[in-house]
Amino acid sequence: MTDETRTQNENRAQRRDWTSRTQISAQLLTAVEEILETGETYTEVSVDRLVTAAGMPRSTFYLYFADKSDLLLALVDEVIADLETSVQGWWNFPANATKTDLQEALRPELEVYRRHRAVMSSVIEAAAYDPTVRDRLDDLYAISTRRMAEHLREGQQHGGVRPEVDIDSASDWIGTMIERGLDQLVLPADSDELERLLTAETDIIWNVLYRGTR
Amino acid sequence: MTDETRTQNENRAQRRDWTSRTQISAQLLTAVEEILETGETYTEVSVDRLVTAAGMPRSTFYLYFADKSDLLLALVDEVIADLETSVQGWWNFPANATKTDLQEALRPELEVYRRHRAVMSSVIEAAAYDPTVRDRLDDLYAISTRRMAEHLREGQQHGGVRPEVDIDSASDWIGTMIERGLDQLVLPADSDELERLLTAETDIIWNVLYRGTR
Repeated sequence: MTDETRTQNENRAQRRDWTSRTQISAQLLTAVEEILETGETYTEVSVDRLVTAAGMPRSTFYLYFADKSDLLLALVDEVIADLETSVQGWWNFPANATKTDLQEALRPELEVYRRHRAVMSSVIEAAAYDPTVRDRLDDLYAISTRRMAEHLREGQQHGGVRPEVDIDSASDWIGTMIERGLDQLVLPADSDELERLLTAETDIIWNVLYRGTR
Repeated sequence: MTDETRTQNENRAQRRDWTSRTQISAQLLTAVEEILETGETYTEVSVDRLVTAAGMPRSTFYLYFADKSDLLLALVDEVIADLETSVQGWWNFPANATKTDLQEALRPELEVYRRHRAVMSSVIEAAAYDPTVRDRLDDLYAISTRRMAEHLREGQQHGGVRPEVDIDSASDWIGTMIERGLDQLVLPADSDELERLLTAETDIIWNVLYRGTR
């Protein structure tokens, strides 16, 4: 996004209310995902195509978004919000929870990532050349790693996390594993593979972080 | 690399002997790394600059390499060979080895990766737009993951690896963690951070794969 489109967008944003922008992008997210699932790439799809699929007047689109790049950023935010909700079960993982509970706490993130696979692939592709998208993704990863570290710190205080865990370095390694694994392993997996990946991820996280404390 | 330069290169390769090409690229690797350590990028450095730094006639360079991209591929091979050697201590990790032994077996890979950080950064950058480089890197990761799986399979047969480990999925997750972590965590780390990352990596791998079997 150029500085000019950014400014235009900010002006638009000030005129519009953000609740509506969020509602509109949620509506477009469904349409975008349906189109991308047919194999087209985000770059190929026109705004006309998008608004038609979403049953939305073209003018409404341009009321809220400067262009397709701007929409992609809004879609990233939608997906990030879903991903953040999906890991709450893990961050609030109680001290007496079992390995089976952990598996069910980890499951939503994998499923949400896969549900949004079309948009996530477009986002990762766009991150290679668009610094704004890259920054947004980096923020997501940084926030996740920080939340994991907070969760571990609290857990160590209450004895629910192995005392030997070096919280910062472990969060970095595990965060990196999940970030990359979602993209490289979870996205291409079928349902059976997903289940095996989830079981293996649970075994890793359980043994590294919680085993022997409960 | 275009098809044409590839063909030129193959013709050259047939005329030259590969031992010499390997020797020449090892010589250039040192020169390239010294130049890149000053902050220049591989894209910016001219062939003239490289051969001067390596004390090599320009004609010798073009006897063995079609261009700078071709040299980069040869440098990747040098670095990959070093990385493969660096993990032998892990693949041959004996059944009675301790967690401290594991740490020392994992150390060389991190150190080799950091020693070649300038070339590895150039390679990862080039992989974003050059499919040949991308393929070479993917091969490296695929081979590492396969070797890890072989090591685990053998270990499980002899009781040196936790029987609960799902070898394929665990190799995928751990391989992904190491691949990405080398780039994202190890490359920017100073010596103290490197030591903490190594300790945390050892703790993860020990607990996931070996703990309780020895």
